[in-house]
This record gives sequence, C-alpha cells and structure tokens, in this order.
Amino acid sequence: MTATRTVFFVSDGTGITAETLGHSLLSQFENIRFKQVRMPFTDSVEKARDCVQRITEARLKDGIRPIVVSTLVEPAVAAVLRGIDAIILDFFEAFLAPLEAELGVKSTHLMGRSHGGADSSNYAARMEAVNFTLAHDDGVSNTDLEKSDVILIGVSRSGKTPTSLYLALQFGIRVANYPLIPEDFERNRMPETLSQHRHKLFGLTIAAERLTQIRQERRPNSTYASLENCRWEIEQAQKMMRREGIRSLDSTTKSIEEIAATLMQTIKLEPVSF
Amino acid sequence: MTATRTVFFVSDGTGITAETLGHSLLSQFENIRFKQVRMPFTDSVEKARDCVQRITEARLKDGIRPIVVSTLVEPAVAAVLRGIDAIILDFFEAFLAPLEAELGVKSTHLMGRSHGGADSSNYAARMEAVNFTLAHDDGVSNTDLEKSDVILIGVSRSGKTPTSLYLALQFGIRVANYPLIPEDFERNRMPETLSQHRHKLFGLTIAAERLTQIRQERRPNSTYASLENCRWEIEQAQKMMRREGIRSLDSTTKSIEEIAATLMQTIKLEPVSF
Repeated sequence: MTATRTVFFVSDGTGITAETLGHSLLSQFENIRFKQVRMPFTDSVEKARDCVQRITEARLKDGIRPIVVSTLVEPAVAAVLRGIDAIILDFFEAFLAPLEAELGVKSTHLMGRSHGGADSSNYAARMEAVNFTLAHDDGVSNTDLEKSDVILIGVSRSGKTPTSLYLALQFGIRVANYPLIPEDFERNRMPETLSQHRHKLFGLTIAAERLTQIRQERRPNSTYASLENCRWEIEQAQKMMRREGIRSLDSTTKSIEEIAATLMQTIKLEPVSF
Repeated sequence: MTATRTVFFVSDGTGITAETLGHSLLSQFENIRFKQVRMPFTDSVEKARDCVQRITEARLKDGIRPIVVSTLVEPAVAAVLRGIDAIILDFFEAFLAPLEAELGVKSTHLMGRSHGGADSSNYAARMEAVNFTLAHDDGVSNTDLEKSDVILIGVSRSGKTPTSLYLALQFGIRVANYPLIPEDFERNRMPETLSQHRHKLFGLTIAAERLTQIRQERRPNSTYASLENCRWEIEQAQKMMRREGIRSLDSTTKSIEEIAATLMQTIKLEPVSF
C-alpha cells in the first residue's frame, strides 16, 4: 500500500472550484487514501505564506510530497506557492493562457469571481427559486403553480424534496412537488390541480424494496411502510404516469445531482445563469 | 466587440465538474458574451459523435471556433473530440497524467465518479442532513438539537434558511436554524433551548436597509418590514450575540456559498466526505 497523501485545496474564494476539481481527480484513484485540507479565502500574499507553512509541515510529517490543487487567480498570490516541495495542480495556470490566446484578450485575474456575487441577478433568481420551492414543497400550496418551472410528482418519500431543493439552490429552477397519495389512486384520477399543468409534470419512481426501507425509518411497522403497500402505491403511480403520458425517472440508484441533470436534459430546462 | 463564443460543457456524468470549471474560467473574461451549451451523460463513442456534430454546426454558424470544456474520462470517448475545429480544454488530460506520475499508479478512468454515487455513505449522510435541516428550519422543532452540527440564529429573513439548506445538501452538515424574535429581545435573554447549545451557535446579521427591502417583498407596509423596526431588531440581535460571545457574520453582500465557506472555516466544520 502507498502512504496517505495530504491534499490541499487552495483558493482565493470559497474553494468550490478547487474542491470540485480535486474530488474529480482523486475519485480516479481508488486505492489511495487522501487526507484533505481546505484552505479557502487565501486572497493575500500573507495568507499564501501561511499555506506554504502548512504544506511544508505536511511534507515533513507525511514523509512524501503533498498534492496542492490551486485556483489562485492573482499571480502574486499564486507565485508564493511556487517552488515548494509539493505537486501543484494549478487550474488557472493550465487553462487561462490558452483561453486568453484563443479569445485574443487578457483575463481580468479578479479574485472570487467564480460563482457570481450575492448582488448578481442570477443569485437573486436562485434565492427566489429556493423560497418558491420551499413554499411549494409536498403539495402545501397550489397558488402560483403556473410560475413553477417543473412540478415533481411521485409517492411519498420517492426523492421529490431533496431533488427540488437541489434544482432551486443550484440552478435557480422553481420547483413545486406534489405527493401522489392512496386517495388519488382510489379515485383513479390525477388531482385536478396537476392536470392543468400536465406539460410541466415530471414523475419520480423508486424500487419498492428501497421505498419500504426509507419509510421504515420514518414509521416502523406501519402499513405505510410495508413492502406490500409500497409495491401497490408504486404500481398505481406508474400506471397513472403512463396513462397520462408523464415523463418519469427511477430515483432508486441515482443521486440528486444525477436526477437533476437527467430531468433538465429530458424536459429541456436550463439553469438561470445560462 | 468580439463575437459571441459558444461554449460546450461535455461530460460523461452530470456535467457539474465541467460547468463549475468552465464558469470559473469564463468569469475571468468580462467583456465577452458566451453562449453556453450543456452536454451531460456523453458516455459513449456514439454520443461523442453527436457532440462533434453540434460543435461543428456551432463553428459554422458562429464563424469562429467554439470552446469545449471537457471532463471525459474514458480515453476512447475523449478521442472522438480530438481534431475538431474548436479549442478543447480537456481537464483530465491536463491533470491526470501528472497525478499518475506523482502517485506512481494508473488512474481507473471510470466514468461518473466525481460526486459519489447514490449508494455511498457520504450521500446517505447528505440526504439525512437535508431531512434534519428541513425538520429544524425556523425553530419548528427543538427535539434532537443535540444532533445538529450548527445552530444558525438571526432575525427573520437574515438568510438562515437558504444557508442551512446549502450546508446540508452540499456538505452533509446538520443545521438547525432559529429565529430571534422581538419577544426574545424584550425578555432580554436568549431562548433557554439555545443557551444549552451555546458552543454550536452561529449568528447571521444583515444591514437594516437590505432587511427592510427583503421584508417589504413579503409583507409590504408592515411594522415588521419597516426600516425602524428592522434597525431595532438587528441592534438587539447583535447586542445579544456580543453579550453571549456568539460568533457571527454579516450576510448582506455575501452569497450562501461564501457564508457557508466562512462559517465552516470559523467554527471548523468539515464536510461529511472529508
């Protein structure tokens, strides 16, 4: 076995880009243990010197070179890290120069630009989407449904709420979500409120074995959580979605990131920033 | 002015990494208009050929080379894009080889690994944190407060809820949030429930001018939203936080990403994946 490697994520902002980049790379090495250290807001030469000290300490302690994933955009700050005994994966160094050459302009080298400030219109739209989505979680409100970008439907605990929140927070998409309940199936009809917005509906389905597991944690030994009832509800929901021609997705083995990306691709929804 | 450039985000997974990296780079070029096209789930040679076609069409239509941000990890799929008339920023090509050399092992080149599958323990912890956080939003429940990682406090509409959801969704941090209300200030004492968990408290504060704006949208012309009342509540809340020694942060001009990163750094909270 190889030794544990210490990985530093050094950024002048929140560190989101550095960590996203780093996790993508590290996930390609399965048999190596990484110790991860986050160093956000490294936005001055002085703070960069503190980083160098911590990286040097790790070098001594580990007995092997640390890995540094860097998204420092200010050249004077980035320069402080050069020459230390570590492998530096410098994101801007690798990509800004070719991009500047292609675009024929110099980049601004402004720090903390990656994710839009709190004052951008994009950010305001995201926060509005979060408020909308919370106000329309679990069918609590039918008002303003026409303002939603998508309405998620599915049986209780099929993954609607976390998916809704992720779509709103990350992409500024206004999501309403609506549980399909036994009463809907007994009436054998989709709720009236939903029929009006058919074109915006998207279904989430789930394997009965997984659903019973999730529901057991909530209400152990209830009819609600029983495998038999889960099977029946899921069958009924799928039948309803098929009959009404509603696109749907099985959430059983998918993360909310995967569900969101698939949903946006399927119904052609774009993030607010685009 | 330069022409609009079309940017393709090509990924074999959700596209989160490609988009995060791409946005970081593009945000460094302020005066150029970018048209962005997302191409997630490009996980076969056939789908890569579809990409090539769309990129070629954009090349013809724009009259200028498109920019392609690629996080294709499978060499056979990535190879399909090579040689097209576009600038390709190939993220794995740039960083995997030096990392393999440093670590002395080959990477797995497995697709869709970046963000952990729905079956990872990290993912389960994140979903659990979302459930916890929703159940402890806006002081609705005092049960299990000892299971929280942090308790956000602040006056109504100071940014507690979106911050809480972001921390839970993104980092798997269990957040409770608790509004400080006029009754608390009149009693001149922190709610008993909170005093017990003093070490976990973190305050959000906000400029009165911004708060009145936000509250006016909710309840126009109310005392609740008036500048005078907002000023008073904020002053009282800050006085209480100072007196009790609670660390706090001004959310006025900060995004939830910045608030979250600052909070985690200040109170030394680590994401569940670390």
